[in-house]
Amino acid sequence: MARTQGSHSDITGPRIRKAALALFARHGYAAVSMRQIAFEVGVQAGALYNYTPDKQSLLYRLMHEHMQDLLSAYDELEQSADASQALRQFVGFHIRFHLERPDEVFIAYMELRNLTPENFSEIEALRRKYEDTLEAILSRGQEGGVFDIADTKIATLAVIAMLNGVMTWYRAGGRLSLDEVEQVYWDIVRRSVSA
Amino acid sequence: MARTQGSHSDITGPRIRKAALALFARHGYAAVSMRQIAFEVGVQAGALYNYTPDKQSLLYRLMHEHMQDLLSAYDELEQSADASQALRQFVGFHIRFHLERPDEVFIAYMELRNLTPENFSEIEALRRKYEDTLEAILSRGQEGGVFDIADTKIATLAVIAMLNGVMTWYRAGGRLSLDEVEQVYWDIVRRSVSA
Repeated sequence: MARTQGSHSDITGPRIRKAALALFARHGYAAVSMRQIAFEVGVQAGALYNYTPDKQSLLYRLMHEHMQDLLSAYDELEQSADASQALRQFVGFHIRFHLERPDEVFIAYMELRNLTPENFSEIEALRRKYEDTLEAILSRGQEGGVFDIADTKIATLAVIAMLNGVMTWYRAGGRLSLDEVEQVYWDIVRRSVSA
Repeated sequence: MARTQGSHSDITGPRIRKAALALFARHGYAAVSMRQIAFEVGVQAGALYNYTPDKQSLLYRLMHEHMQDLLSAYDELEQSADASQALRQFVGFHIRFHLERPDEVFIAYMELRNLTPENFSEIEALRRKYEDTLEAILSRGQEGGVFDIADTKIATLAVIAMLNGVMTWYRAGGRLSLDEVEQVYWDIVRRSVSA
């Protein structure tokens, strides 16, 4: 039996999130019980319910925090007024932010099916908000004549999907450094939208 | 209780695959039991073991067949000798093949973590073989001077990831027809690699 600790939410909150993320990513939301999460954290199952009313709320909270972190981190960038520079920033930001959070990224994609319709709508709205920041850059460049894009909505989805692909193959210490990866992707993205 | 039928593998094989695919895609491999699959098919759990020795083998078989179907379908195309035309063919083929198989695509990505190391290696080898067909097109165009690509391996992964993204948002009857989607993606892919 794991060590039983106090249930003070300031202390156990981050540990609950970390344990739940790792377990959901490893086994899938449906296969993980609140009891398993509590065991991993080292608290009684009851202590978990001081933090979250149920497993659905925990999943929603993990996904919501991930999207909020993403939007906040992007907002904190000093965004270039130049569309081409802003796009380059976006490419580097997106790759690096997501590479640091493989479990969150995996869950954000994989466990959408396990959200209730209401929770799904809220997560989707945040995802769209993030997509809109990229589409705004593309539209700005399009209006300024530096980009030539047939459909800015689809170009947005194509660029994000392309960058998300990095998560499936990049390993630190591999053939290319992260700087090189960013450079190669920037080159591909730049060409794909340039006038 | 579902209707119990004969376990003749010619008849139940496709139904077992169909039921397992749907259940794995909905709930995740770890959360689905052989008993549930048998119930869905309408056979006794024991009959399942005439078809597959265990759940791991069933998962492997589903993923293996998906990759074999993909490679066979691509091989059956009349592939253009012209690199640019061949790339266009690949874009259309990839989008259409995968849109028809959302459960297989989802499982191929999501359940890699649940394969044994040996099974994982075999599925990975097939995935690489498919990637190699695209990389060969890109290299051919590069050598012929029609493409200008910094890194053909990464360009391969970027193009496939971009096209896989269609699966996450495309719905028949939406804003764009499949022909239009294919055209917009071809435009993005073409630009991203063109000299």
